[in-house]
Amino acid sequence: MTREVERTWEAVQCALEGTPTVLVCGGDPGIYALAGLVFDLCRENNVRLGKGGLEIEVVPGVPALCAGAALLGAPLTHDFAAVSLSDLLTPWETIEKRLKAVAFADFVVVIYNPKSKKRDWQIEKAREILLSARSKDTPVGIVTGAMRETQKVILSTLGDFDASLVNMQTTVFVGNSATYVYDGKMVTPRGYGGKYELEEARMKDEG
Amino acid sequence: MTREVERTWEAVQCALEGTPTVLVCGGDPGIYALAGLVFDLCRENNVRLGKGGLEIEVVPGVPALCAGAALLGAPLTHDFAAVSLSDLLTPWETIEKRLKAVAFADFVVVIYNPKSKKRDWQIEKAREILLSARSKDTPVGIVTGAMRETQKVILSTLGDFDASLVNMQTTVFVGNSATYVYDGKMVTPRGYGGKYELEEARMKDEG
Repeated sequence: MTREVERTWEAVQCALEGTPTVLVCGGDPGIYALAGLVFDLCRENNVRLGKGGLEIEVVPGVPALCAGAALLGAPLTHDFAAVSLSDLLTPWETIEKRLKAVAFADFVVVIYNPKSKKRDWQIEKAREILLSARSKDTPVGIVTGAMRETQKVILSTLGDFDASLVNMQTTVFVGNSATYVYDGKMVTPRGYGGKYELEEARMKDEG
Repeated sequence: MTREVERTWEAVQCALEGTPTVLVCGGDPGIYALAGLVFDLCRENNVRLGKGGLEIEVVPGVPALCAGAALLGAPLTHDFAAVSLSDLLTPWETIEKRLKAVAFADFVVVIYNPKSKKRDWQIEKAREILLSARSKDTPVGIVTGAMRETQKVILSTLGDFDASLVNMQTTVFVGNSATYVYDGKMVTPRGYGGKYELEEARMKDEG
């Protein structure tokens, strides 16, 4: 995954020369991935899009947040926020502000890029911020290499969470105040009501 | 989609009787969908999971937020939050608090369940909240029936956004302060830096 910009620009040039070109990436190309970079490069280099220009189709895929959630159980059944901890393109102040905002507003939080070889303190800081607004018993799911041979799925809590379990391929799921663990599955209910309220509400919403 | 609880409980009972059972839903089963309900019902009814109990596998799919994003361009290349406007299972105060938090912290916002037959004012209120923290020129993507025959993709702005374009099948994407529209594509850059910074940062992050 090095030389992303070069590789993406090569693909754009290839397409401009008239060769049908496919740029492949893992997960979904639109979530923290290459689709945005394709458009950024086209705009910066005045490559016109659409009919008469470059026709680009983005094919959606299964993002890491869905693959990881499926392995954990169903942690994303209610409102959630995806936050990348990479502070190389985004000031850390912005990331911290975001973590505080979603911690305060009881979102399930999906943490992307929790760590890299040279970036190791952010995940512990993120845990602190979330702990300041949420119980130490809040379930945390740690998914590494989802659906790959290296796959590892660990259930923990905000209080016990061990940052050494996290690497570059890890996505971390932090539950909201209603998230529970049942027989090894991490689950966020769809609302703050019970079973019968659920059914009644659904019927009302569709009536 | 009526009688969701009954249908899901029937599937669980079928599996408990020993029949391999599949419960199918559109998009990804884990995002505002049935996977959570399966686990909720098992827990409420003391159905044990795992070896010796009910073995449940969640198969991830392509969620509406990825399908819609792909049709719009690449609006989710940076931090985003998914918020459902259905206030039937979640108090409106909680939803409003969440909208304010993510508006303030400059998240791209993906709005699920913007409207139903009997629930029509929430989307306009959400727009007001987002407008209080974001420019009226902020790009808004309105995707209805993504990847279906009824598919409709509309680009607008927070200032011009027309709530009548929204129905029960619509997902609404509200950009962050860096989101732009270029030749009909809605794009959120991966960071707040430029092209060369991007490459440099990536190399550093992997270094």
